[in-house]
Amino acid sequence: MVTTAPASLLQPRLAQLNADYARALDDDRLEDWPGFFGDPCLYVITTADNHRQGHAAGVIYADSPGMLHDRVAALREANVYERHTYRHLVGLPAIVGESDGLVRAETPFLVVRIMRDGRMDLFATGRYLDVVVDTHGALRLRERRVVCDGNRFDTLLAIPL
Amino acid sequence: MVTTAPASLLQPRLAQLNADYARALDDDRLEDWPGFFGDPCLYVITTADNHRQGHAAGVIYADSPGMLHDRVAALREANVYERHTYRHLVGLPAIVGESDGLVRAETPFLVVRIMRDGRMDLFATGRYLDVVVDTHGALRLRERRVVCDGNRFDTLLAIPL
Amino acid sequence: MVTTAPASLLQPRLAQLNADYARALDDDRLEDWPGFFGDPCLYVITTADNHRQGHAAGVIYADSPGMLHDRVAALREANVYERHTYRHLVGLPAIVGESDGLVRAETPFLVVRIMRDGRMDLFATGRYLDVVVDTHGALRLRERRVVCDGNRFDTLLAIPL
Repeated sequence: MVTTAPASLLQPRLAQLNADYARALDDDRLEDWPGFFGDPCLYVITTADNHRQGHAAGVIYADSPGMLHDRVAALREANVYERHTYRHLVGLPAIVGESDGLVRAETPFLVVRIMRDGRMDLFATGRYLDVVVDTHGALRLRERRVVCDGNRFDTLLAIPL
Repeated sequence: MVTTAPASLLQPRLAQLNADYARALDDDRLEDWPGFFGDPCLYVITTADNHRQGHAAGVIYADSPGMLHDRVAALREANVYERHTYRHLVGLPAIVGESDGLVRAETPFLVVRIMRDGRMDLFATGRYLDVVVDTHGALRLRERRVVCDGNRFDTLLAIPL
Repeated sequence: MVTTAPASLLQPRLAQLNADYARALDDDRLEDWPGFFGDPCLYVITTADNHRQGHAAGVIYADSPGMLHDRVAALREANVYERHTYRHLVGLPAIVGESDGLVRAETPFLVVRIMRDGRMDLFATGRYLDVVVDTHGALRLRERRVVCDGNRFDTLLAIPL
């Protein structure tokens, strides 16, 4: 007999989605990044303070695949990726709700920045507040709100998280 | 045909348990924290040195749900959460044994502390040594021994891990 | 009905493999480490720069179980483990391919070093590029290429990652 708590099948798929997402960013395959989102979509980077106070806008805001592609183009233009590399450590996804084919999940993350000389530092921590949709067997992000714990938005502005 | 190594179904459920646990702490929903434990239960925070030497007691010791609730009340009184926030990154659970409906698992963790001014530091690393029980379809902690790698118990005393 | 994306069953098993692997290293059970590999096997530690430039050799290179055992013996001789402890945080595995019973996976990791006095620092980040084989129901590493993000190979040379 196979008893399946909902988590048993969905958790691994969310893990795979998050692992693929982090890998695309850390491999500098930015052009693949919009492909993790559905259409319509919402992508926001914000701070814990802003999120707590109900500010929807965030520091970065994109509500269509086109805006995500524009963002990638702007980043390539700016060449910000030349300077450092990043390593995402994405924690275990928590499924927090499910209805009408949409899954709400929260997933913590930590990003380490690696300088050209090999030095590393903690760059960002926070959590992904996601709404995920099951599209033709693949999971896509309908919404990803990146809520950063800190407020260091000097360089945070530059890269997707 | 569905071939299921034991890990296939249990791993995702342990992942979900750990993700929910970490989320409750990082969201400052301390009042939800005792609900992750069964009754009876055991919750211990200790150091790797103490654990290696077989000292059972630990720096923090609670062996009933009531003691966990008392701990939360004391923390609310002390207001220690005002000053910083924390981000738990919980690693992949390792199932190390299973018998009589009890699962033993070991899971590494890392906690980052975020100051009010946005600075972050590595606050603690270690592993959870758990005995988990399947209660009415939900997993509960019968035992969680939090074995910290380091010995910085100044503030560790204050917050649940 | 149980619909299983390939990830649903394999992800948890890869998670378990990685969790067991990290636990063996952090518990200083080095003698168990070669047991995670198949025969034949390949174990390489290299840098992101070297990997990008196609250098196969790496800083550490072992292509047989015997060489892994030799490595452990050398480490025990050198006693390098006395000085520090380490904590591996292994991220979510990304399955990137599957054919002929072999699974290719990429998994990020972060290693924290804990000094005897309790101080911690970020020791290494990177990713495991794995080829995993299903042997008699257990997963074994046919290949593990440890690609480190930084270039701090002073002490990296000493310990398995």
